Amino acid sequence: MAYPVEKLREEKVFKDPVHRYIHVRDRVIWDLIGTKEFQRLRRIKQLGTTYLTFHGAEHSRFNHSLGVYEIIRRIADDVFFGRPEWNEDDRLLSLCAALLHDLGHGPFSHSFEKVFDLDHEHFTRAIILGDTEVHKVLKTISPDFPMKVAEVIAKTSKNKLVVSLISSQIDADRMDYLQRDAYFTGVSYGHFDMERILRVMQPGEDQVVFRQSGMHAVEDYIMSRYQMYWQVYFHPVTRSAEVILTKILHRAKALLSQGYSFKSYPYHFSSMFNGKITVEDYIKLDEAIILYYFQMWQEEEDTILKDLCRRFMNRNLFKYAEFDPAKEYKKLAELSGLFAKAGIDPEYYLVVDSSSDLPYDFYRPGEEEERLPIHLLMKNGEIRELSRESEIVDAISGKRRTDHKLYYPADFVKDHSTAPAVKKEICKLLEIDESRY
Amino acid sequence: MAYPVEKLREEKVFKDPVHRYIHVRDRVIWDLIGTKEFQRLRRIKQLGTTYLTFHGAEHSRFNHSLGVYEIIRRIADDVFFGRPEWNEDDRLLSLCAALLHDLGHGPFSHSFEKVFDLDHEHFTRAIILGDTEVHKVLKTISPDFPMKVAEVIAKTSKNKLVVSLISSQIDADRMDYLQRDAYFTGVSYGHFDMERILRVMQPGEDQVVFRQSGMHAVEDYIMSRYQMYWQVYFHPVTRSAEVILTKILHRAKALLSQGYSFKSYPYHFSSMFNGKITVEDYIKLDEAIILYYFQMWQEEEDTILKDLCRRFMNRNLFKYAEFDPAKEYKKLAELSGLFAKAGIDPEYYLVVDSSSDLPYDFYRPGEEEERLPIHLLMKNGEIRELSRESEIVDAISGKRRTDHKLYYPADFVKDHSTAPAVKKEICKLLEIDESRY
Amino acid sequence: MAYPVEKLREEKVFKDPVHRYIHVRDRVIWDLIGTKEFQRLRRIKQLGTTYLTFHGAEHSRFNHSLGVYEIIRRIADDVFFGRPEWNEDDRLLSLCAALLHDLGHGPFSHSFEKVFDLDHEHFTRAIILGDTEVHKVLKTISPDFPMKVAEVIAKTSKNKLVVSLISSQIDADRMDYLQRDAYFTGVSYGHFDMERILRVMQPGEDQVVFRQSGMHAVEDYIMSRYQMYWQVYFHPVTRSAEVILTKILHRAKALLSQGYSFKSYPYHFSSMFNGKITVEDYIKLDEAIILYYFQMWQEEEDTILKDLCRRFMNRNLFKYAEFDPAKEYKKLAELSGLFAKAGIDPEYYLVVDSSSDLPYDFYRPGEEEERLPIHLLMKNGEIRELSRESEIVDAISGKRRTDHKLYYPADFVKDHSTAPAVKKEICKLLEIDESRY
Amino acid sequence: MAYPVEKLREEKVFKDPVHRYIHVRDRVIWDLIGTKEFQRLRRIKQLGTTYLTFHGAEHSRFNHSLGVYEIIRRIADDVFFGRPEWNEDDRLLSLCAALLHDLGHGPFSHSFEKVFDLDHEHFTRAIILGDTEVHKVLKTISPDFPMKVAEVIAKTSKNKLVVSLISSQIDADRMDYLQRDAYFTGVSYGHFDMERILRVMQPGEDQVVFRQSGMHAVEDYIMSRYQMYWQVYFHPVTRSAEVILTKILHRAKALLSQGYSFKSYPYHFSSMFNGKITVEDYIKLDEAIILYYFQMWQEEEDTILKDLCRRFMNRNLFKYAEFDPAKEYKKLAELSGLFAKAGIDPEYYLVVDSSSDLPYDFYRPGEEEERLPIHLLMKNGEIRELSRESEIVDAISGKRRTDHKLYYPADFVKDHSTAPAVKKEICKLLEIDESRY
Repeated sequence: MAYPVEKLREEKVFKDPVHRYIHVRDRVIWDLIGTKEFQRLRRIKQLGTTYLTFHGAEHSRFNHSLGVYEIIRRIADDVFFGRPEWNEDDRLLSLCAALLHDLGHGPFSHSFEKVFDLDHEHFTRAIILGDTEVHKVLKTISPDFPMKVAEVIAKTSKNKLVVSLISSQIDADRMDYLQRDAYFTGVSYGHFDMERILRVMQPGEDQVVFRQSGMHAVEDYIMSRYQMYWQVYFHPVTRSAEVILTKILHRAKALLSQGYSFKSYPYHFSSMFNGKITVEDYIKLDEAIILYYFQMWQEEEDTILKDLCRRFMNRNLFKYAEFDPAKEYKKLAELSGLFAKAGIDPEYYLVVDSSSDLPYDFYRPGEEEERLPIHLLMKNGEIRELSRESEIVDAISGKRRTDHKLYYPADFVKDHSTAPAVKKEICKLLEIDESRY
Repeated sequence: MAYPVEKLREEKVFKDPVHRYIHVRDRVIWDLIGTKEFQRLRRIKQLGTTYLTFHGAEHSRFNHSLGVYEIIRRIADDVFFGRPEWNEDDRLLSLCAALLHDLGHGPFSHSFEKVFDLDHEHFTRAIILGDTEVHKVLKTISPDFPMKVAEVIAKTSKNKLVVSLISSQIDADRMDYLQRDAYFTGVSYGHFDMERILRVMQPGEDQVVFRQSGMHAVEDYIMSRYQMYWQVYFHPVTRSAEVILTKILHRAKALLSQGYSFKSYPYHFSSMFNGKITVEDYIKLDEAIILYYFQMWQEEEDTILKDLCRRFMNRNLFKYAEFDPAKEYKKLAELSGLFAKAGIDPEYYLVVDSSSDLPYDFYRPGEEEERLPIHLLMKNGEIRELSRESEIVDAISGKRRTDHKLYYPADFVKDHSTAPAVKKEICKLLEIDESRY
Repeated sequence: MAYPVEKLREEKVFKDPVHRYIHVRDRVIWDLIGTKEFQRLRRIKQLGTTYLTFHGAEHSRFNHSLGVYEIIRRIADDVFFGRPEWNEDDRLLSLCAALLHDLGHGPFSHSFEKVFDLDHEHFTRAIILGDTEVHKVLKTISPDFPMKVAEVIAKTSKNKLVVSLISSQIDADRMDYLQRDAYFTGVSYGHFDMERILRVMQPGEDQVVFRQSGMHAVEDYIMSRYQMYWQVYFHPVTRSAEVILTKILHRAKALLSQGYSFKSYPYHFSSMFNGKITVEDYIKLDEAIILYYFQMWQEEEDTILKDLCRRFMNRNLFKYAEFDPAKEYKKLAELSGLFAKAGIDPEYYLVVDSSSDLPYDFYRPGEEEERLPIHLLMKNGEIRELSRESEIVDAISGKRRTDHKLYYPADFVKDHSTAPAVKKEICKLLEIDESRY
Repeated sequence: MAYPVEKLREEKVFKDPVHRYIHVRDRVIWDLIGTKEFQRLRRIKQLGTTYLTFHGAEHSRFNHSLGVYEIIRRIADDVFFGRPEWNEDDRLLSLCAALLHDLGHGPFSHSFEKVFDLDHEHFTRAIILGDTEVHKVLKTISPDFPMKVAEVIAKTSKNKLVVSLISSQIDADRMDYLQRDAYFTGVSYGHFDMERILRVMQPGEDQVVFRQSGMHAVEDYIMSRYQMYWQVYFHPVTRSAEVILTKILHRAKALLSQGYSFKSYPYHFSSMFNGKITVEDYIKLDEAIILYYFQMWQEEEDTILKDLCRRFMNRNLFKYAEFDPAKEYKKLAELSGLFAKAGIDPEYYLVVDSSSDLPYDFYRPGEEEERLPIHLLMKNGEIRELSRESEIVDAISGKRRTDHKLYYPADFVKDHSTAPAVKKEICKLLEIDESRY
């Protein structure tokens, strides 16, 4: 049975720099965009601290969520519409899941989730199923519609085809963010021929498949993804900002548990600190709130909290050195001792950070973060996994690349109050050219 | 005497979506960018509330300031360098003035300045001349350098040529923002051939002049400007958001003077409210702070403050109708009475807003906001004002266009508690199709 | 009755730099593209001699014809489809007329038509109705279909709506060529938001109308058109090449009538020279043929033909001076005499060329080249002519701008064999700085 | 000793769609562009028959040559200028070599060279050193300058650094054509961040090196190259057109040697046929001449020549099937016999064509077409070959990919006059779905 979908009297359009226009004809989509939970995504940056490296990257998750929706809309309305394998009932389900897939993201998600042991996927589900404006809108479709949407986003839905549209190795989420992040950062990677990829997509039994004739466009997408990861997402300066952000949260948590008396008490975080955060509290969290505290904390007594907040607000970041954890754990211990001697707390000021990516993976069940492999539909009707057809994808598939770096405040090290012998030793170990100070 | 300009050991570059790369070789520029006063511009949007209309317009004044700097750098290093009319001493002065020209902008400047009678130009000057990091960096060039920079930005400098680079009808400021705002909003207006305009620029006696051969590129720039004003900057939805923002500030100010007891007291604003704001306080103001209060105030007792904040945060904006102040002042009075009857305070919920622009102006001394006209250098060496050569510019020059609109909350009007007769009357006057409710 | 339209088993696509992809699903369109008459358009440049000014402008009329077809396809399939005012029968008629509208263009049409008194519209009609592959394909739709298509292109069709899609002041033809010519020349003019214009188009009673909300996009299109005319289409260097081309044809015609004995006899032109050209002969004419003769004629005895051909092939063009025919006719006569004295035949080497354009015209019946004005559909249902709503269009509408230039071979003038006194006099009249020789 | 380089009084610019503007300040460059040998490149398409697959690919070698020049100009003037490793004397040598590197290309070079055993590199040299306008211009620099330029282009120069700028695995030639061909075809491959690549270039001892920080931009370039080869340059439809072109030339050559009496005798080719072509004859050859003959030959008596010419002119190309020469040589022999039975001459109508590419190669001396590998300059000053640092390049380097296809005229096979049994057998071997006829 098809959903009783109400159409708007007149199509609404959003001007979008990436997809040119975003088109909305369904009342339910229009209403979802208008909810306060969705509008909150305007106050959460798509790329967290990346704007401190690429100043153009100030775009929000609101932006991206509309983009993912639009890609699915084009697939549903221009590509799949009328095909026997496509169930028109899945259209609205796909559209809503696309629009809402990032709903539970908090401010600077990555750091927050690590420090407070939170999970944005949990909150996405909680917002969709809880007593929220989003939930009310979704229920107008049918009583079980919110649950269906939540299951698609959680990848637990039995509707594998729809799941694969939203999360696989070549889904609408990735296709939007690669292009959008490239556009806003201004880098020349991130371009691929999405129009062609959409044209060769086809609904398969439990997954989208791509007609072989579009293989090269898919290869190009994989390469774009590879470049964006290493050039943008894992940029060491961005990671430096994230290291500081994480350490601020750690420090605040530690101070709170020690009973430290804040000038500006972190009311907004307290339920997180004690692990009892409600959906209502959660959706009040946005980046404005975080930045408010960071600004206020520049006036705290605690020198570590104060310093780290100043660093973040004024972009006075940590420097970095290459680091090989397998071989250099001794050096790290040594440095830790030297930092302590110099009066620089190594817990907050000497940080190893690792990034790791798998440019493309064929299916290995059970692995963390597994995403469905890409399947080609050959001219003879056979289905083949991409890396078996593409030499270039085969060459890079399954190869995990990891990068470790050691972050530290160069300005502290070079500070005049540090004992010269300690300073010299630190510089030697970190391969800093001392004469430059 | 040339400034003793220290160069960086290695050129620094910023990836920029509009100018591709922004190049920094001068130590003083690099240090200015690193000051906390300049970093603060990252937390102030270039286009204020425009992101609620064009979701891509989330870029900051930091972004734009780098862009203006880069345009001046190209003019100085690639176009003017080596010309007899160009004094190489003016290079650094121009670069610094370009970079810092927006330094004093506050969050959502337009509304703030109106409500609190502030002036961002005053604060720009105050930050440059006060006890700030920016001031310290500028002083490394020479003791009077900060004052020189401030005078260029204030247009009081005797160095007319440098002033014209930063503020005239075709300056680096406008050339950057037209292109940048077009890029981030995604509109197709705002494009013109800047590379050609730069190539035909030439330092004149007390103003930049443009060789006649580039006249069409300049015309195209004027047309871009015209379109951007009416399509983007004066968009009625953006103005609606600004109307609400202004009314929030009005309400907070009124409550404060009435001794209202805030749950969240506006500490950050108090010195503004009492008219004694210091530079130190001022630079703490950014959009995160504003949004923090707006979020908190959604929980206030005062129903007007609360409602307006919810509207702003959740983008539940006012609708609008065309309004002719000359002919319809009676209708406004009538509506005002009806709103009062319906229990909707007309002071906050019935607002006339006007926008007005002059696409190009030849010189009329003494007018407010006067900007220097554009001068062409003819082949025979003569200097001619643009509108005398360009038919198309002549056709539109000096023609002020004004647009008035009346903003109101349609949801309140259609609310069931409003008396049907009053509702009917309001709908009639506002030409609302009642049946759509 | 709907045409019995056969669909292809699989959609065909052409990669197009301007519209990204061109989509073909109708068998008749596919077959028309495959005809030899349509393939011939690959050998005729869209912009004639413009490639000698803008080296990128080497694109053919084949290119452009596909583009016009694609715009109409999008209008028919994405915008008008399903609207009550749109007769689905008109779809194929519009598509075929769009594709074939330039079919009768010859090589370097403008010059050819002038010299041989030909008319490309006549040949378009003749090819569509004659014994050609195109005719055979069109007849598969219905016996009277070729005639219907010919009438739409000739603007004699009673189907005013379809005519207005193909030829009005804002038709698919112009929308394609402005964008395409901007793309290939690389100029920054020529951009406008076609996607938005298409979205606000609506079939009216006997003309396309544009919803008022898209007025600014239409204004932007008018300005693009204005800039393209003066910056690209009427560029004086292009006109210089065209002057030479025209003079070559004149000379060949004159020699032929004088019974001159050609080394390379112009077989391909002879039927044109005697005014009895058949369709079969005509479609053999393409730019390769012309260039073949021009190359061969560099070896002729006749010094004028030989010189002009060398000039054209090696881009050794005429220089130009401003010229006011109303005031300077005496000067022209004088120059003519001086050229004769210097042994430079003024008939071929002293040429006045004029360009003239009307950026936008409201309707003035009976004028040459009249094109339908642009009509806006106001919110209240009223239809208003564009210049009554748009200040900027009003400012320029109906204003014809004309530019006259005098072309001459500067190298001949400065040649050492010219008598010094004559040379001096010519230089004085043409305002040539003699010292530069 | 620096060349006595004369500068133009005013810089000349060309509007270029790829590099925006091409700047010329040197008199010698301006004069070279004006020679008839260089202007001839306007009549030779950059991508030969590719315009029959990608209709936008109508751009000429003139276009590309200016682009290569401009890239070298930027390297010399913006990147290398002032570096101690860079000899300013090499500037003009590099510029001229860049501009002229393709000077000897004939029409549809690839096919011509194969059939007539010609070599465009030979003719480039011959034009530069012979009695030509180009030679005269080059000699104004110094008597041995033409020879120096010729040696750089021939890669026999001792100046390895300059050679590597013009021909290596990442030279100005490739950087221009990848971007230019992508632009004109409209494909989304071919983009990479050239600005960044130029910024990290540095003159090394006998080769350009790239600072390690730009490695990812170089990787991206390699991937672009890979995609352009397989998506554009080796497109099977383009190869089909080239197969036909080659067969036309073969047929004409065969007929000539048989004493066939041509209606249109190939005067322009005769010296090629007899192997005694002079430079003077060679530079008369352009694509207009070729197309002239192909048009005339549609009227010849010889059915093969006539048919092939019609196919080429009207784009009635051969179809293709995958072919594995190692396994299917028997099938080919069988098909050959069947074609002969069907009256279709297999020599002209059954053609195996192979394409092969090496996406990136580290140095293997002695191999044909060897190009210098790419060298990175590491932070520690070490020089490393690219594939040792880049995993993704390592994964694909040294892997030659080859593609074989069998071309045949499907329309002849399905022709009614072919005996049904033969037809059936051919269809079976070529895996043609007979029912589709």
